[in-house]
Amino acid sequence: MLNDETLAELGEAEAIRRIVPLLGVASSAVVGSGDDAAVLRVSGELVVSTDTMRESADFRLDWSSAEDIGYKAAASNLADVAAMGAKPTALLVALIAPAETRISWLEGFARGLAAGCEQLAPGTAVVGGDLAAGPTLTVAVTALGEVAAGAAVTRAGAKPSDRLALAGQLGRAACGLELLRLDMARAFDEFAEAQRRPQPPVSLGLAAALAGATAMLDLSDSLSLDALRIAEASGVSLEINPSYLLGYRAMLEQPAQAIAARLGDPAVTTESLTEAWVLHGGEDHGLLASFPVSSQLPRGFKEIGTVLEANESPRLYYGNEELSARGWDSVRLTGDPTHHSL
Amino acid sequence: MLNDETLAELGEAEAIRRIVPLLGVASSAVVGSGDDAAVLRVSGELVVSTDTMRESADFRLDWSSAEDIGYKAAASNLADVAAMGAKPTALLVALIAPAETRISWLEGFARGLAAGCEQLAPGTAVVGGDLAAGPTLTVAVTALGEVAAGAAVTRAGAKPSDRLALAGQLGRAACGLELLRLDMARAFDEFAEAQRRPQPPVSLGLAAALAGATAMLDLSDSLSLDALRIAEASGVSLEINPSYLLGYRAMLEQPAQAIAARLGDPAVTTESLTEAWVLHGGEDHGLLASFPVSSQLPRGFKEIGTVLEANESPRLYYGNEELSARGWDSVRLTGDPTHHSL
Repeated sequence: MLNDETLAELGEAEAIRRIVPLLGVASSAVVGSGDDAAVLRVSGELVVSTDTMRESADFRLDWSSAEDIGYKAAASNLADVAAMGAKPTALLVALIAPAETRISWLEGFARGLAAGCEQLAPGTAVVGGDLAAGPTLTVAVTALGEVAAGAAVTRAGAKPSDRLALAGQLGRAACGLELLRLDMARAFDEFAEAQRRPQPPVSLGLAAALAGATAMLDLSDSLSLDALRIAEASGVSLEINPSYLLGYRAMLEQPAQAIAARLGDPAVTTESLTEAWVLHGGEDHGLLASFPVSSQLPRGFKEIGTVLEANESPRLYYGNEELSARGWDSVRLTGDPTHHSL
Repeated sequence: MLNDETLAELGEAEAIRRIVPLLGVASSAVVGSGDDAAVLRVSGELVVSTDTMRESADFRLDWSSAEDIGYKAAASNLADVAAMGAKPTALLVALIAPAETRISWLEGFARGLAAGCEQLAPGTAVVGGDLAAGPTLTVAVTALGEVAAGAAVTRAGAKPSDRLALAGQLGRAACGLELLRLDMARAFDEFAEAQRRPQPPVSLGLAAALAGATAMLDLSDSLSLDALRIAEASGVSLEINPSYLLGYRAMLEQPAQAIAARLGDPAVTTESLTEAWVLHGGEDHGLLASFPVSSQLPRGFKEIGTVLEANESPRLYYGNEELSARGWDSVRLTGDPTHHSL
């Protein structure tokens, strides 16, 4: 590519000058990129969350394009704001990249951020950030949103007899990760795409709040791990109904069959794979919420279980059996939902 | 130390559980740490900024304690919010640390963040964040604040005949860096301390806005580099009056003498060192602002120069001579103000 200078050749100021025009404009911005801080209008209360993504732990440059990584950074952080029942308004993005990173990669990353904002939460955009050189490609995103005063939906309000419901995809990103690891992504590209560009149902966060959701969170680490977080914060137990997950599992059958055949391990079956992905796979960024039994679920939410009294301590059940939570731990860097070695 | 487990031994959830109680409570927080996002009350418009600090590029573990690094992360980011004429309200902190990092280090870091918030901007605290393992110790801080609608002070409003004024320290952090590099910090610990724990005049940001500041920024990279940013954003030239900097330079004379004697290089004198530190040294995080000539400078601001018409393009003058801007570039990782090899 012509004039594809590196970050170090361009320097901080010039690299930022090239990237900023690609980021779009947030409708809430009074002062955007280029000053000490951005200034935004906020109506109601402010919702704010921050998260990091690191090369190798959270993404791989041979699996994902710069655009993909920008899109995923936007998607996963917009989902955190949506999970509070809020309307996202803007992102801030700090990027640490090796000095030899090409400006074309940075431009692709910025375009991916803009695409994620535009497609998942129209009116949002990156309003500020930071660019620095460092050995490990690292993305730190802060997502901002607004919610009517007192209307934020935390993890702590689930009540016995509430219905547990899910919006968005389940198990697809974990399936895609497996396909990428096994170099089988080409045959099932829509699943690999779910790993590269998750599609959180961002607008359903506000819809759930308006419909009376009593607790909500974003499924980033796994259904089992994140459901247990609602149970613990709310002081309840949760029962996931296995039959309600069959639809999600059926959608994963084709790639699961192909993977089971490839692995040739009798312990790894189509069934064990689809079950592990939906229960213990992360990164789909769906919304898990509880609703009073009397309320109508908002369109896009599917019932998957029930909230129960916690007898001794908050527990998670899968039908009648207690379910051990497992999923991604960003400190231990473990969370392979299927636990087979590759 | 007893039970000084590593991050990997504790895992993400338990490590966070240990750290959060040390962070204090922000008076604006409706929902604090532990949910998908924090929820804050905002009065007026929101001011928000993000910045990263990386080991070796921005701090060294043999020069700074965990507390120092937390304090500096708070200070440098609170200064960005103050520089908009805003009142800081809260921080979010994403930390990436090697898996073998001790919990005692993380606790010290959290205490340093809390101390920085409490001392520099009472009522602020860390309200959320993220913890992950990665090879390079990296801190990404987002600072939040509030400002009356339309009252934010950008870099873009300086007008010819305005007075240029500075609040806070100048050249001390650069002097401290030099002392640390030369292993001379013990004899001049107050200067090394300025490098480890900068003291931005956070409350003077709002005071400057109320006094009618026309432009303002936080001196993070150097007086010359940051002054040129005001000049370029405002379409003016700036003249720094060398005699107004003599007081700042006098305060640096003792360590400069000692360093010049140690180096024994005839090109490096007490005078060349103090001049380089005040003009081209970064990390003091003072506030540089322009005020209409008729307005009274708020207590704590000292006049250092004048805003001029830009004839062809925005320029920076040091007395009658044009001054080349130089200072820290976080992509090129260069910015040694004194340009001598060590």
